[in-house]
Amino acid sequence: MTKLRMDKLKEECGVFGIYSEERNDVATNTYYALFAMQHRGQESAGIAVNNAGIISSYKDMGLVSEVFDSTLLDILQGQSAIGHVRYSNVGQSSRENAQPIVAKYRNGHLALAHNGTVLNASELRRELEDSGVLFHSSSDSEVLLNLFAKNRMSSNNIIESIQTSLKTVIGSYGLVVLTKNNLIAIRDPWGIRPLCLGKLDDAYVVASESCALDAIGAKFERDIEPGEILVINKRGLESFHLEQEQPSRLCIFEHVYFARPDSIIDGASVYEARVEAGRLLAKQAPVEADVVIGAPDSGLQAAMGFAEEAGIPYGHGLLKNRYVGRTFIQPNQSSREFAVKLKFNTMKPVVNGKRVVMVDDSIVRGTTTRKIVKMLKDAGAKEVHMRISSPPLKHPCFYGVDISRREELIAVKHSIKQICEIVGADSLEYLSLDHMLASPIGSKCGFCSACLSGDYPTELYTRHKNQAFKEIETGQYE
Amino acid sequence: MTKLRMDKLKEECGVFGIYSEERNDVATNTYYALFAMQHRGQESAGIAVNNAGIISSYKDMGLVSEVFDSTLLDILQGQSAIGHVRYSNVGQSSRENAQPIVAKYRNGHLALAHNGTVLNASELRRELEDSGVLFHSSSDSEVLLNLFAKNRMSSNNIIESIQTSLKTVIGSYGLVVLTKNNLIAIRDPWGIRPLCLGKLDDAYVVASESCALDAIGAKFERDIEPGEILVINKRGLESFHLEQEQPSRLCIFEHVYFARPDSIIDGASVYEARVEAGRLLAKQAPVEADVVIGAPDSGLQAAMGFAEEAGIPYGHGLLKNRYVGRTFIQPNQSSREFAVKLKFNTMKPVVNGKRVVMVDDSIVRGTTTRKIVKMLKDAGAKEVHMRISSPPLKHPCFYGVDISRREELIAVKHSIKQICEIVGADSLEYLSLDHMLASPIGSKCGFCSACLSGDYPTELYTRHKNQAFKEIETGQYE
Amino acid sequence: MTKLRMDKLKEECGVFGIYSEERNDVATNTYYALFAMQHRGQESAGIAVNNAGIISSYKDMGLVSEVFDSTLLDILQGQSAIGHVRYSNVGQSSRENAQPIVAKYRNGHLALAHNGTVLNASELRRELEDSGVLFHSSSDSEVLLNLFAKNRMSSNNIIESIQTSLKTVIGSYGLVVLTKNNLIAIRDPWGIRPLCLGKLDDAYVVASESCALDAIGAKFERDIEPGEILVINKRGLESFHLEQEQPSRLCIFEHVYFARPDSIIDGASVYEARVEAGRLLAKQAPVEADVVIGAPDSGLQAAMGFAEEAGIPYGHGLLKNRYVGRTFIQPNQSSREFAVKLKFNTMKPVVNGKRVVMVDDSIVRGTTTRKIVKMLKDAGAKEVHMRISSPPLKHPCFYGVDISRREELIAVKHSIKQICEIVGADSLEYLSLDHMLASPIGSKCGFCSACLSGDYPTELYTRHKNQAFKEIETGQYE
Amino acid sequence: MTKLRMDKLKEECGVFGIYSEERNDVATNTYYALFAMQHRGQESAGIAVNNAGIISSYKDMGLVSEVFDSTLLDILQGQSAIGHVRYSNVGQSSRENAQPIVAKYRNGHLALAHNGTVLNASELRRELEDSGVLFHSSSDSEVLLNLFAKNRMSSNNIIESIQTSLKTVIGSYGLVVLTKNNLIAIRDPWGIRPLCLGKLDDAYVVASESCALDAIGAKFERDIEPGEILVINKRGLESFHLEQEQPSRLCIFEHVYFARPDSIIDGASVYEARVEAGRLLAKQAPVEADVVIGAPDSGLQAAMGFAEEAGIPYGHGLLKNRYVGRTFIQPNQSSREFAVKLKFNTMKPVVNGKRVVMVDDSIVRGTTTRKIVKMLKDAGAKEVHMRISSPPLKHPCFYGVDISRREELIAVKHSIKQICEIVGADSLEYLSLDHMLASPIGSKCGFCSACLSGDYPTELYTRHKNQAFKEIETGQYE
Repeated sequence: MTKLRMDKLKEECGVFGIYSEERNDVATNTYYALFAMQHRGQESAGIAVNNAGIISSYKDMGLVSEVFDSTLLDILQGQSAIGHVRYSNVGQSSRENAQPIVAKYRNGHLALAHNGTVLNASELRRELEDSGVLFHSSSDSEVLLNLFAKNRMSSNNIIESIQTSLKTVIGSYGLVVLTKNNLIAIRDPWGIRPLCLGKLDDAYVVASESCALDAIGAKFERDIEPGEILVINKRGLESFHLEQEQPSRLCIFEHVYFARPDSIIDGASVYEARVEAGRLLAKQAPVEADVVIGAPDSGLQAAMGFAEEAGIPYGHGLLKNRYVGRTFIQPNQSSREFAVKLKFNTMKPVVNGKRVVMVDDSIVRGTTTRKIVKMLKDAGAKEVHMRISSPPLKHPCFYGVDISRREELIAVKHSIKQICEIVGADSLEYLSLDHMLASPIGSKCGFCSACLSGDYPTELYTRHKNQAFKEIETGQYE
Repeated sequence: MTKLRMDKLKEECGVFGIYSEERNDVATNTYYALFAMQHRGQESAGIAVNNAGIISSYKDMGLVSEVFDSTLLDILQGQSAIGHVRYSNVGQSSRENAQPIVAKYRNGHLALAHNGTVLNASELRRELEDSGVLFHSSSDSEVLLNLFAKNRMSSNNIIESIQTSLKTVIGSYGLVVLTKNNLIAIRDPWGIRPLCLGKLDDAYVVASESCALDAIGAKFERDIEPGEILVINKRGLESFHLEQEQPSRLCIFEHVYFARPDSIIDGASVYEARVEAGRLLAKQAPVEADVVIGAPDSGLQAAMGFAEEAGIPYGHGLLKNRYVGRTFIQPNQSSREFAVKLKFNTMKPVVNGKRVVMVDDSIVRGTTTRKIVKMLKDAGAKEVHMRISSPPLKHPCFYGVDISRREELIAVKHSIKQICEIVGADSLEYLSLDHMLASPIGSKCGFCSACLSGDYPTELYTRHKNQAFKEIETGQYE
Repeated sequence: MTKLRMDKLKEECGVFGIYSEERNDVATNTYYALFAMQHRGQESAGIAVNNAGIISSYKDMGLVSEVFDSTLLDILQGQSAIGHVRYSNVGQSSRENAQPIVAKYRNGHLALAHNGTVLNASELRRELEDSGVLFHSSSDSEVLLNLFAKNRMSSNNIIESIQTSLKTVIGSYGLVVLTKNNLIAIRDPWGIRPLCLGKLDDAYVVASESCALDAIGAKFERDIEPGEILVINKRGLESFHLEQEQPSRLCIFEHVYFARPDSIIDGASVYEARVEAGRLLAKQAPVEADVVIGAPDSGLQAAMGFAEEAGIPYGHGLLKNRYVGRTFIQPNQSSREFAVKLKFNTMKPVVNGKRVVMVDDSIVRGTTTRKIVKMLKDAGAKEVHMRISSPPLKHPCFYGVDISRREELIAVKHSIKQICEIVGADSLEYLSLDHMLASPIGSKCGFCSACLSGDYPTELYTRHKNQAFKEIETGQYE
Repeated sequence: MTKLRMDKLKEECGVFGIYSEERNDVATNTYYALFAMQHRGQESAGIAVNNAGIISSYKDMGLVSEVFDSTLLDILQGQSAIGHVRYSNVGQSSRENAQPIVAKYRNGHLALAHNGTVLNASELRRELEDSGVLFHSSSDSEVLLNLFAKNRMSSNNIIESIQTSLKTVIGSYGLVVLTKNNLIAIRDPWGIRPLCLGKLDDAYVVASESCALDAIGAKFERDIEPGEILVINKRGLESFHLEQEQPSRLCIFEHVYFARPDSIIDGASVYEARVEAGRLLAKQAPVEADVVIGAPDSGLQAAMGFAEEAGIPYGHGLLKNRYVGRTFIQPNQSSREFAVKLKFNTMKPVVNGKRVVMVDDSIVRGTTTRKIVKMLKDAGAKEVHMRISSPPLKHPCFYGVDISRREELIAVKHSIKQICEIVGADSLEYLSLDHMLASPIGSKCGFCSACLSGDYPTELYTRHKNQAFKEIETGQYE
């Protein structure tokens, strides 16, 4: 049985933390919060709970609702907890890499859950290995945990150790750390990965996305700042900062695609950001048409914005089969043609005989887009005009988004005109980067747009450079 | 672990059949067709395959993609197949009741899959039992199978036996029957349950909904007519009829709620029927407002129709968490408040400070509606006007829809004004039955609207009468 | 993954029943009783419970301890219960054939569990089919259940119906039947399959083997007589008889191999019968040797009897690995040599340099015996003398023992001398049938020795005759 | 569901290793070898395979045959492998503690499987923690692995590092270590845990017990010597030694109870050791009786030795139900009386009216013994004389045997006479330590008899001393 490969970007993780002096349901709240962030990672799920210094954890491959049952949640009693959902690349998809990572060091138990990627993990790991440290996984998160423990030996407390450690770390991270007395939330100096703070009665909670706060009835307080180390313990909140001050560079795809539309990230509504992108796109690349439709689920809001701006009726032209899951049997080669048909169905009454604007948030490899365009034409669409609510993907992401191999990105090797022909559309336009960054939301918080522009916010390492610039230096594309 | 109870109507089943002289993938096609009709039943799934007279089957509790894997499909080789997905009431939810039912009688193997309900099953069963027949389940479908076998003894062929048998049967049925040489599709004389015919290269297929044909790339041919017995075998198609001629009475809720919007039932697009209902509702019960939103998924099209007709912007004010499944842990009593929050999330930017029209297809018990109204107000909605795109549910359905106990229907005991107060809306209107039946789609095919009007198309039996009319006779409601 | 094929005879089933006015643990007692009879069938297990006329059941593939957990047993509440463990041939090994079979007929629920085989099942089934009866399995037990239901229509009560039905049935059966008011235990007129009665405080219990009574602390009362119909209900016990009176013909292999040594069957201790067979064998076929060892587990007692009679020391020369189970991975062709090694291990100190007498209860195909002889020689045995505590197996069994295909029986095509050569022993002797039947136990109850002598106690049907006598008529063997 | 608690000593582990230049079935051989040592640990099983420097592993809770299937074994390709079966105490029974432990350090992958216990693990761990090392489990084996990695930084090779590391380690260990180029087998300087070497064609194998060699057809070469570090690589075998020379102190219970009777440990046959213990017991504590029976499985050989020496017939008076497994439902409090009955059954013909000698290898808490004595009397035994083939257990074991809490040992608080009364026997005698050590096998290899004599071969640490001597110093027992 193979999985139906989704022709979509993948993000690696969602993290959550809760600290409460009085509640006895920290694991249950973590469960519901992770459940609300299930879209950020479907491969594994885990919860670690601190009970007076003893940290217990459970994690396994699968969805949150598959990994945990009420018996397990009952066992995971404590005063604070962290949780993690994970998406993982092929080959790294194993139980050993599930998080939170729990370990014991001289000063007690320690647990960590990490969303993001450490770019210089190999370098840091080599240094640790040279001092005799063993690693049990290939994960960069285990490197962080070892740094914290190692530097703790020469620090006055865990905060100092974290500060010392992260000075040497280049990369993206939304981190939650559990110690005997503290829940610590840390966001990388560039703010690439999101992290926010909420309050649930007496308890503080932190989460990758604000929708997790809503799910458990917590009140959104504020975003964790780039470079902030927020310590939560019985004395309340205390905020520290990493020294490296940086302009804010939130991953632009959080708003475009990853996050749930009901989340608020760095002061901006994801929903509004998407509608606005659709509006801008309609202004930038108008087209005469009879109906605007969106690709479910993340393209729907941009489609509505486009329709509104363009004054063209909005319709539900494509629906998604909600039962496509991991055990679904993929059609074999001979019948692969209808793989997309099983996942999407076209609404003939919406598109038949019409000039259709089809709005999607991005095109990765182009294969799904091509099939959808064909389905729309088969359903009677006279014209199909593709409008993409973000600029072309041309560069690899090193900060936690799986754009896999650069040569798979259709925009790397093909001009927009060529892509339009490949996918069989009557016209194709992408929202320009300038328009995107100039939007009201774009001006609210700085963005990392490395995958679109090649402008990486952090230092890169040899292996990244090879991967990122090779083709461009040869100038053979575009 | 308990299931998150969905405050929705439930239908019992979807059926599919395929007959091919040449293909070797009848089981695989059945798998994909059932997968496309998964919304018609999530409790059990089954496939039976006829291989030169030997019928093998596999069925179990669970989703289509959970019950079957490619090994099983490879084993299920044959020239014709039928399949079934099932929703079942509490207490009847067991492996024994999964379909297709396969049996052997004097003339060979026989398999049957049934969507619908036989009203006089007890009476028919008693007659069979009086002749010494044993039953292995409580299912009315087993009664049908025994009738076919029993009457075959005095018939010239299976068609004659089916005709004789169904003369005595009162109720709704979309039936597919597999014999050594035939695939037989039968629709009840009232046409209460849908059934249609398609063609896939050399193969004929039948399905409860046309979306199943689309999923496997089959071409829609026509609806099976009410009272038609369609026999498919190596000579092609042959059509017979049951004697009881009846005006067509398709279940009105197929268009309102059950069917997938991309299906075409009895000549009418489900999508269009829903948009049209929204338009009619806007005409019948207009309201001043800033945004129209729909309850996912089945209320969305009506909301679009309402918005269009009323000239009010349409917005995505409510989203559904796609990961709610059967193993999800329901919040306990103390935290039940947020059960609906885990399933739905509100888009604050869409509703905050706005007068909202919220369109749904129906209200059953009212509890979910009440919670959603509260969520919208919590998200800042100034007013919430509920508009329901079908008339109030007041009467039990005996034809295959689980409206459970009549006293649970909020409209039985409360006036519209009272319901409005209970759910906390600023206004509440239902589409009137007259408007509904006068719609273009309503006039295309006759409807069974028993659950709305109390006008039952078939003879009722004592126990139904008690259940259907008791409260009304006492006149204590409304 | 394939199963390690055990070169042993297989019996089909064990049955159990309990009736109690006062206990609330009938399912739990059935669980432990089936557990004690697990050796009689490891493929499926099931329990049916009667609760005031409603019979619920659960059954599945697997060992008793795998199929049931305490939650299930708690659900299965009632006043009476029957249970079943089943061994089944390849191809029939499916959930559908698991027992008890539960059905509903005109007079209420009915459940049945059956140990044995109906020889004229096809004939009886055809008659039922001619009257329009459907069958859901290929099992002869379903034929019995239909007969009981059918004949009940013309009978005054279920007992009369059973009597009428069984008049037409040729074959072996230990049956337990559950009705609203009764637990009924029936043994075939020849007494081929065993069945006994016990008492547990106020409750009566029936079981295929007395060891099941011991397991739950019940007191053994007596064997059910051949042809007896024992009815247990609130009035106590009542005994009826089938008309066909027959000489008693208990399956001889119950004592030789199937039953647990702590069971008492038809008045004789299985343990003593085996020790006695060993003694007789030592008298009949003495040999000079240094040690006597037995093949675990069923050959051990005969080995002790042989050792005692012959005055040769007894030793544990062969041990069995207790962890060989159904999920064990069988070595592949190239390494199959050590398959038996994984299951058995030789005690070198016991056999090294010794002349060994190896006692087993039977030889079926001879392949395991050959490997064990080789293992003993590899461990240093100077001589290996095989002694078999029953006569050669030459004829198929039609009464519930799976001796599969006659041509697989080594004794059908080979003389004892030839077998001795094939298995590589220095000498080989079987206990003669005359000695066996003349033993104290043999004279206590008559035996069915059809598999040894070809003397079948019941009428045979065409297909049996072909199978049973073909080779012998051609006289080509022996 | 709870497990049927076995009133028996538990050992922690069995280990296995294989190194082959040419075979491609190292994982499969490890599977069968672990399967043969399943009696040494039933809680978890694991295999790690080295493929040109990349070590992959799989491990999980469960029996060897449950954890692995042929797909997994096919994936685990390589040139060398190690495996582990584990018994674990309550509370430590988790996936995290399953072995082999696989890690990566500066010099590559490293895997380790360990049978035994490190007494100064806390002290060593504290030192490692002080240098900043993190631990992922509570296992003393992880301490060993970290020592090896840490000391490797200042060593010329892994052997030197192991030598340096083990100088600081006090405790018992049979260790197998996998590196890129080597399979390394190490036995503690006292030789407390067994380890032996075998050859399978071109491959070398090491195992805790020789029965694992037999299972895969390997030839036994020799025992690994106490304090030996045996390195196996492409150059063949090379032997190193730890400096601490010690008199040999094999755990006496390997011969008495743990090991399989077909194993040869430190030059002595386990089978013969048990028979001999029975003989010595008969000489030391004779009794007039009619039959000698043994407690299955490990008491059987001693019973045979006793019977032989005493000239009393040997009989199978007790049999064990082979289907008792981990999912077996334990009878509840009210019916606990028959818990032992489900596990053992008495052979009435063997004991009825007889004076019985019942031989067992040890008495831990005495509860099972008491129930068995009662069962024998219920079966008609006139007298029951208990004879134990080892001295009374009075002291905790710190070397890998779970004698749990000292106060649970019946012999700590009671005299032999009192124990005899408690278990309800007519007489009770234990084999004396003097007789045991003076036996031919006792004189072959030195024994650790700490649990019997309180004479611990290694240095003890504060917490052990408290546990070991407290009660004795207070002089309140004995």
